[in-house]
Amino acid sequence: MINYNQRMNTLTTRLKQEGADLAIIMDPSNIFYFTGFNSDPHERFMGLIINLKIEKYTLFVPALDESAAAEASAVQNIVTISDEQNPFEIVQSHISKEGISNIYLEKGYINIARYEGFQNIFDKSSYHDMSSIINEQRLIKSRQEIEYLQEAVDIIEKVLSEGIKKVKVGMTELELTGELELLMKKYGAIGPSFSTTVLSGEKAALPHGSPGERQFKNGDFLLIDFGVITQKGYCSDMTRTFIIGEADEKQKSIYNIVKDSNQAALNLVKSGVPLKEFDIAAREVIKQNGYDEYFNNRVGHGLGIEVHEAPSIHEYNEDIAKAGLFFTIEPGIYIPDYGGVRIEDEVYINENGEAEILTSFPRDLRIL
Amino acid sequence: MINYNQRMNTLTTRLKQEGADLAIIMDPSNIFYFTGFNSDPHERFMGLIINLKIEKYTLFVPALDESAAAEASAVQNIVTISDEQNPFEIVQSHISKEGISNIYLEKGYINIARYEGFQNIFDKSSYHDMSSIINEQRLIKSRQEIEYLQEAVDIIEKVLSEGIKKVKVGMTELELTGELELLMKKYGAIGPSFSTTVLSGEKAALPHGSPGERQFKNGDFLLIDFGVITQKGYCSDMTRTFIIGEADEKQKSIYNIVKDSNQAALNLVKSGVPLKEFDIAAREVIKQNGYDEYFNNRVGHGLGIEVHEAPSIHEYNEDIAKAGLFFTIEPGIYIPDYGGVRIEDEVYINENGEAEILTSFPRDLRIL
Repeated sequence: MINYNQRMNTLTTRLKQEGADLAIIMDPSNIFYFTGFNSDPHERFMGLIINLKIEKYTLFVPALDESAAAEASAVQNIVTISDEQNPFEIVQSHISKEGISNIYLEKGYINIARYEGFQNIFDKSSYHDMSSIINEQRLIKSRQEIEYLQEAVDIIEKVLSEGIKKVKVGMTELELTGELELLMKKYGAIGPSFSTTVLSGEKAALPHGSPGERQFKNGDFLLIDFGVITQKGYCSDMTRTFIIGEADEKQKSIYNIVKDSNQAALNLVKSGVPLKEFDIAAREVIKQNGYDEYFNNRVGHGLGIEVHEAPSIHEYNEDIAKAGLFFTIEPGIYIPDYGGVRIEDEVYINENGEAEILTSFPRDLRIL
Repeated sequence: MINYNQRMNTLTTRLKQEGADLAIIMDPSNIFYFTGFNSDPHERFMGLIINLKIEKYTLFVPALDESAAAEASAVQNIVTISDEQNPFEIVQSHISKEGISNIYLEKGYINIARYEGFQNIFDKSSYHDMSSIINEQRLIKSRQEIEYLQEAVDIIEKVLSEGIKKVKVGMTELELTGELELLMKKYGAIGPSFSTTVLSGEKAALPHGSPGERQFKNGDFLLIDFGVITQKGYCSDMTRTFIIGEADEKQKSIYNIVKDSNQAALNLVKSGVPLKEFDIAAREVIKQNGYDEYFNNRVGHGLGIEVHEAPSIHEYNEDIAKAGLFFTIEPGIYIPDYGGVRIEDEVYINENGEAEILTSFPRDLRIL
């Protein structure tokens, strides 16, 4: 069980140190993180507003989410907003502007229109970004969270083991995507944590391509980048690349360079090392083999209740690795009109500052 | 084929009338609408910037999307941003601030942090919202778009016809969800246009509930609210509610009230009628039968390349229906701890101002 009250207390303590009087949290993943209520309000208004002067927590939700919020939220004080109501009038009638000078909100999430809405109500206040405060708190994963994240990895690895049995020449990328996503649900996940990426042949060179009607052929690269979101709300994200039928020497060579690149980064992961070193180590292997122009993205990113979270693992990130970080390592070589290989694992820096790799699916080249 | 240049010309003409010097478009669905490039950049920077002084269009994309953007975008001038670069420095080096006084951007989309980034560059400019200008343009669907939207409806109806054959007592909501989503891909969709909602028994009372491990039982309501996104990038969204095994009189009565409510709204749809009338007509049927406290959301919403677009069909929307509008009609009755019924169709107001209902799946109560 996640202790949401403890999370809110940690945040409240930190915000008071900053001199905050009011906090406005609107990112649904942050609302989930602090209250346990996990909901996408689409264009409707949803916000957790904390009056730090009187330690009052109020969760504003769309009217149609009232019972779901009441069931899930650790914040008991729930105010509903129906479609015909102006959310800012409702906020104004529930949150006193008495003594509110410093407002903290997620500048990286809240849009300009809503910003102006709050500025109309709290017109004498100054506004500060709290994205980094929340992200620093979410950055450190507890052992409990790692158990939830391991469950997300276990499901996706079972899906991969079963899913690749269905691969055959003539199958389309979309058909395999459908089979994989069916297996996700069969193994108890809510669904994919992001658009399942199944790319074959030359399309494997597109780091963010979408599966389509292309049929698998002998000699194709088959790149599968996917993850699940579990019923507890945690994400996985992993990639394996296969070759269909028969691999030629160039394909094998590229594959093994990426495998070595991935391993070089994983070997370095522990607390005390600058995060950029993981990227540089992976990049160096690819560079030494002459493929550096074909690896043009960062080597990894954090994840948790979202599939992209802090930290960002790139060659200019000077932050030092520490216990509690959880992130992907995913080098790749992408050669336009030829194909590509990516191998992506998930690694945790545990209580002792050591790496625990949550993904266990073999990394050796496998011919399907 | 969609004529993207025409769309951009329409926008540019309108913006010039407003006195705009620069337009900044960052909502991925708007970028898709105007350029044909359909991509979710996650936290990375992606923006279409139009310098109206010199009619220069520049599309900024993450480096890893370069080839995909080059292939799909009608805007030829593409600037890439890699993960270690500061996007605002790149923007500054490509967009002259010479003569830029009035900047139009999506205040309902762009976050505060990016707003402040633009304010740092264009520090002498005033900023205006262009969300309504774009939404008004997207509001009017062409016949070509309706063909794409009909394809999305046809797929989801085939999925429903096939999917309900698999329903049996003991199956879980998540299992059926998986089967439905597999069928989506089998019939050529990219996947669901939003989280597929399969709710059974008392859970059918949750308008935005999530499918879980609940097993279907005899006498259950089975509410299926779902849609697909097609490879052309268009969405569908429909709901049908079934009863498993055997329906009692109360269930039949509630079902038929919702069916009549849906029909009452659909009967009114044509150009010239205030949009609120569709909501009021549906609501009135439910009210007359004493269930008005159990219908607490608007009766419909527009859709297109997103599953929620303008117009919003609620009882206070005074706007007048006109040719080109496309929206859902989805009344429901949701009784906590008992169950619920929703019937959702999609309707277009065509060139002659008449209603064309795109959904054709029967609305009579069906026992599975």
